[in-house]
Amino acid sequence: MSPRLAAGLPEAALIDGRPGGEVSALERGLHYGDGLFETIACVAGSPRLLPLHLKRLLHGCRRLALNPPDPAQLADEITALARGSERAVLKLIVTRGTAHARGYAASGEERGTRILLRYPWPKEDERLTNEGVRVRLAELRLGENPALAGLKTLNRLEQVLARFEWSTPAIAESLMFSSGGDLISGTASNVFLVRGGELATPRLDRCGVAGVMREAVALGAQRARITLKKCTLRAEDLAAAEEVFLTSALIGVRPVRELAGRALAVGPVTRRLQQELAPLLTGEERLPVSASA
Amino acid sequence: MSPRLAAGLPEAALIDGRPGGEVSALERGLHYGDGLFETIACVAGSPRLLPLHLKRLLHGCRRLALNPPDPAQLADEITALARGSERAVLKLIVTRGTAHARGYAASGEERGTRILLRYPWPKEDERLTNEGVRVRLAELRLGENPALAGLKTLNRLEQVLARFEWSTPAIAESLMFSSGGDLISGTASNVFLVRGGELATPRLDRCGVAGVMREAVALGAQRARITLKKCTLRAEDLAAAEEVFLTSALIGVRPVRELAGRALAVGPVTRRLQQELAPLLTGEERLPVSASA
Repeated sequence: MSPRLAAGLPEAALIDGRPGGEVSALERGLHYGDGLFETIACVAGSPRLLPLHLKRLLHGCRRLALNPPDPAQLADEITALARGSERAVLKLIVTRGTAHARGYAASGEERGTRILLRYPWPKEDERLTNEGVRVRLAELRLGENPALAGLKTLNRLEQVLARFEWSTPAIAESLMFSSGGDLISGTASNVFLVRGGELATPRLDRCGVAGVMREAVALGAQRARITLKKCTLRAEDLAAAEEVFLTSALIGVRPVRELAGRALAVGPVTRRLQQELAPLLTGEERLPVSASA
Repeated sequence: MSPRLAAGLPEAALIDGRPGGEVSALERGLHYGDGLFETIACVAGSPRLLPLHLKRLLHGCRRLALNPPDPAQLADEITALARGSERAVLKLIVTRGTAHARGYAASGEERGTRILLRYPWPKEDERLTNEGVRVRLAELRLGENPALAGLKTLNRLEQVLARFEWSTPAIAESLMFSSGGDLISGTASNVFLVRGGELATPRLDRCGVAGVMREAVALGAQRARITLKKCTLRAEDLAAAEEVFLTSALIGVRPVRELAGRALAVGPVTRRLQQELAPLLTGEERLPVSASA
């Protein structure tokens, strides 16, 4: 492993399937953010929700007209890197590859690059999943572009700048609105509201990232017979919510106990979903590959 | 030089001042597009409009709260790499550096990475500057975000996708509108309209990149006593324009002779500006460093 990588945090890294810590300076991933990523939680030595991650990645490749990696080979590499760690976080980056020429145009013949990094599981207070977290509202608003909406692309400067808005560890996340004023997501999570026993989460057809745990919640809601609406939500919907929770591949379903200074109870719908999804999150239940269809 | 780089197009590359062709896989420039770039035309062995490039880069670093490289050191590296080529294109990428931890947050202690690539001057028909180019209108619209507007960041997927909309070499550029319907720029150029002897170019406070040649045109217009307005422009302004031209660090001032099928004459204001800026573009005249204040 390269000295540059050893100085960083990952415990292991594969570049195009081979151990290594460097990429070409001609990477379109670097020049343009021309690629996608997945952050995969590994529990009990296995990548959690892998079919949903691969499904989103391949969908993103199609949308960006990016030659996708071979899914079976990728799944093998991910599984191999996850093995041997009780808990770990895998970050997968897939780019369009190195540029054959200067400029935005691509030949279409580029061979994509796949970068797989294994990080230790984050040190954090496990009680947060039970007791909930404190959340603020972001000042920065998300630009709207249907061509990129829903995708987890490498163009993440909006999230970086939004994450700079606060530094106290007491605040776990910022909720972000679109330039048009719609509620979209956290900087690194999706958001769900509960009102009158029903679930709602923002539509992500103009901006935002459609998280895999958001999909898992849709599955859990279906199993628990809780109505879930993907719809336009505004600040007033947030203010009227009885329960609010955040989701991500790493945090699962995490209740919000304080939203911009307003105290919130961790309510029954949030608890019901946590219970429903528990087997998926512990790795006791595995999603079938057909979930990636 | 690394074999990976040798397979690509650049003739030379410096990573943090040292010859090399690879960067860390932990680059925030790769993970998030967390950085900026400049494309610098070199003529007669010297970087053209260097003070304007450095000014924009440092402005961008301030806006992104990114530790800037030392401007004097950077200018030395650029000048050294430009020397010895009659004509070349330098691409400079400045990132926030390698990530100290997973996630969007930064410690503020990151040491930025600077990547300098020298490419051969593009092979193209020199008559285009005289006779003008054919231009289409982009279907993809630019998301609006004042926090990033004007900056030449590494988040360029919108431009990549817009560039995929056409492939015929007969079309030189696509003009892009914002999600709100305002005319903004080309995929890799700024745009100017002429009407009634006056110049107008789009405001870039919600999206777009404020090009260095756009600044040079402002200087040229001042010298030539031509009124220039930076304002909101719509499709109807484009339709009513008597002259249209594109600008970029590489192409200088390039007339549009056909816009979405409508023939346009290369008019007197475009010619006057080309004449006024000619000494700057040939390298005969150098901008004083004070232009970067």
